[in-house]
Amino acid sequence: MLHRSQLHGSLADPAMTSMNLLNEISIRYPEAVSFAAGRPAEQFFDLDAVHAYLDRYLDHLQKERGLPPEAARRQVLQYGRTKGIIHELIATHLAVDEGIEVPAESIVVTVGCQEAMFLVLRALRGGPEDVVLAVSPTYVGLTGAALLADLPVRPVADGPDGVDLADLRRVLAATRAEGLRPRALYLVPDVANPSGASLPLALRHELLALAGAEDFLLLEDNPYCVFGGAERLPSLKALDTERRVIHLGSFAKTAIPGARVGYVVADQPVSDGAGSTDLLADLLGMIKSMTTVNTSPIAQAVIGGALLTHDHSLRAANTEVAALYRRNLALVLDGLARRFPPGNGVTWNEPRGGFFLVLTVPRVVDDALLELSASQYGVIWTPMCHFYPGAGGEHQLRLSVSQVDPDTVDLGLDRLAALLAS
Amino acid sequence: MLHRSQLHGSLADPAMTSMNLLNEISIRYPEAVSFAAGRPAEQFFDLDAVHAYLDRYLDHLQKERGLPPEAARRQVLQYGRTKGIIHELIATHLAVDEGIEVPAESIVVTVGCQEAMFLVLRALRGGPEDVVLAVSPTYVGLTGAALLADLPVRPVADGPDGVDLADLRRVLAATRAEGLRPRALYLVPDVANPSGASLPLALRHELLALAGAEDFLLLEDNPYCVFGGAERLPSLKALDTERRVIHLGSFAKTAIPGARVGYVVADQPVSDGAGSTDLLADLLGMIKSMTTVNTSPIAQAVIGGALLTHDHSLRAANTEVAALYRRNLALVLDGLARRFPPGNGVTWNEPRGGFFLVLTVPRVVDDALLELSASQYGVIWTPMCHFYPGAGGEHQLRLSVSQVDPDTVDLGLDRLAALLAS
Repeated sequence: MLHRSQLHGSLADPAMTSMNLLNEISIRYPEAVSFAAGRPAEQFFDLDAVHAYLDRYLDHLQKERGLPPEAARRQVLQYGRTKGIIHELIATHLAVDEGIEVPAESIVVTVGCQEAMFLVLRALRGGPEDVVLAVSPTYVGLTGAALLADLPVRPVADGPDGVDLADLRRVLAATRAEGLRPRALYLVPDVANPSGASLPLALRHELLALAGAEDFLLLEDNPYCVFGGAERLPSLKALDTERRVIHLGSFAKTAIPGARVGYVVADQPVSDGAGSTDLLADLLGMIKSMTTVNTSPIAQAVIGGALLTHDHSLRAANTEVAALYRRNLALVLDGLARRFPPGNGVTWNEPRGGFFLVLTVPRVVDDALLELSASQYGVIWTPMCHFYPGAGGEHQLRLSVSQVDPDTVDLGLDRLAALLAS
Repeated sequence: MLHRSQLHGSLADPAMTSMNLLNEISIRYPEAVSFAAGRPAEQFFDLDAVHAYLDRYLDHLQKERGLPPEAARRQVLQYGRTKGIIHELIATHLAVDEGIEVPAESIVVTVGCQEAMFLVLRALRGGPEDVVLAVSPTYVGLTGAALLADLPVRPVADGPDGVDLADLRRVLAATRAEGLRPRALYLVPDVANPSGASLPLALRHELLALAGAEDFLLLEDNPYCVFGGAERLPSLKALDTERRVIHLGSFAKTAIPGARVGYVVADQPVSDGAGSTDLLADLLGMIKSMTTVNTSPIAQAVIGGALLTHDHSLRAANTEVAALYRRNLALVLDGLARRFPPGNGVTWNEPRGGFFLVLTVPRVVDDALLELSASQYGVIWTPMCHFYPGAGGEHQLRLSVSQVDPDTVDLGLDRLAALLAS
């Protein structure tokens, strides 16, 4: 018999247990109206497209890159390059869609954005003095990857604009005063998960300047930028003139979740102390060779074919689905306004787009309330406290709109109102 | 500017640097005859089969498991179950091909066997007192995963039969005397990489008994068992009556490397100290949720379709390719016998099958000799010293036969003989 106390500490962390509980609740209450799932909409899922994308990529290898048929076949079916095979297509996509100009060599194709986060955090954990900062509330995948990398997470307040620079300065000073080394700040600058917040342009510039002045990296995670609303703001990486930004990307929301393809842009030079310099991306590739060897080239080919089919632009390809998310968000916001008039004690933010919004309510929001909501009221959502590395969110819940069904929005919100009135 | 000394220790380990060098040499000398690549043969690679397998799996979901079309589509294209979607097919495959009877719930589908190794080693690293033992010479992927998990590797001699039990007892006692906790022994019981050794049946039983008596786990890695030769021996997991064996598997050699699908069987109970018990597989799934979330369901569907197409038996499906590897091995063994008569000082083992054999030569075999061999003699191979966590293999080199071309075997061996005579 093994004992959990003799296994890695991440397995005993409350964050891991609570995530399991959240995943379970949708399974235990399948009939509940769900505002919990952060998964992409499924209306446009198309299996024929998977076949077509695969063929399109093979065609590209042969016709545009001049590979003989057996070499093209080998590239998709054999073990492959650790850093991936669609890095050049991703570089073009980043230039076209996001104005990010980076050499393809600085891109590592990963098994979803989760692996990208783990590779970066593992690399940055040089010793017990290292910590990572995260805008809080934060994405639970970041918390999980940090636990696995034995890297403590220090929360930084988000404030109304997505990051509170005064709090960031305070946390930097406090961690250094403890003898710790803050390596990076993790954030989602556009329509964040879970808060829905987006950083204004001026704040992006100030944050980059602070990262330079205080010598830390920015881990920019941008899975929802395509769904960020009408006004487009440049990503931190697009504004990054000093290679301060490590950019994390995902095709799960913009192409196909089931491909499990993401990437990291890491164009930072790393000195070996003996006069030689490597690209951080190459060192992340070394770590990747110990975790997954390489990202399935079949899955990469599917995403590569999607990029080729849409002329490297996923903004263009996602026009319809972006409209669907905007409609869902509007439905939920309208429904909230009708049910909770001003002064009622229930408030919420109005994100520019994305998948999530946050409700603040005049009672404690915890797993017990969620259990009551699921079992007695037939509606599920996510307690915000799970997204805070420290304390926080005790009166808040997250509503996800990505899989909302227009026919049940009102029913779900009625049930939520009944719960909150109980 | 970042500094490598401030990054994770695995990035500064000589084992990582040397693996990079080995990967590079094939790229730098593409014209050399190669006995270095451990990759599967490519003669039977078939892209049409990928499409067919995907369709076969979808058909299975709908016709045999009764899923409506949209649910089947969702299973392949949406985020999915952390432990995977083809666990039941893998459980049947293990019963049919290997006589391993385990509940499907004890299987975690992973991004190749590499992720399986990392998940297990990360889980078993509870504290700085934990170490893993490995039969030495050992697979470099194990060394890499252990580096990444901060888990020291203690070598155990292989001896002529694949593991030297006397040395194993000595290493167990020595590590415990140091206050360390040996958690598991890693080994490849059938036609190992790199040694080609296979454990006789009696030794398998003795090893299992010792694991029980001395309270450690066996990490059985079995990627080549299908190619193990005429006489079939049961895997350790098939003989395991006390759940001492964690079984690691891969479809890279038996199906398609480019799918990057492997798995781990972990049916061990884990007590939480408060009266509750989990399956180790479920805890590995929790770690997987922090590394890759889930293995690409598209890639799993391709492998699932392959299993369905071949009635769950990869032994039957690999008859032709197994014959090809046997022919290659025979060609190389014959060629060696013709060039190095007894008393010449060059000796080698004669594995039952598999991809690899080991040559012992009367000179020092290191990276410098490999560089000379590649640049001046036009033949590449792998210095055995890279497979020893400690010292060892200084007079040995590994020859891989998996990608040998019958038309160039003699040329390659002539060049090798010329190098050794120089």
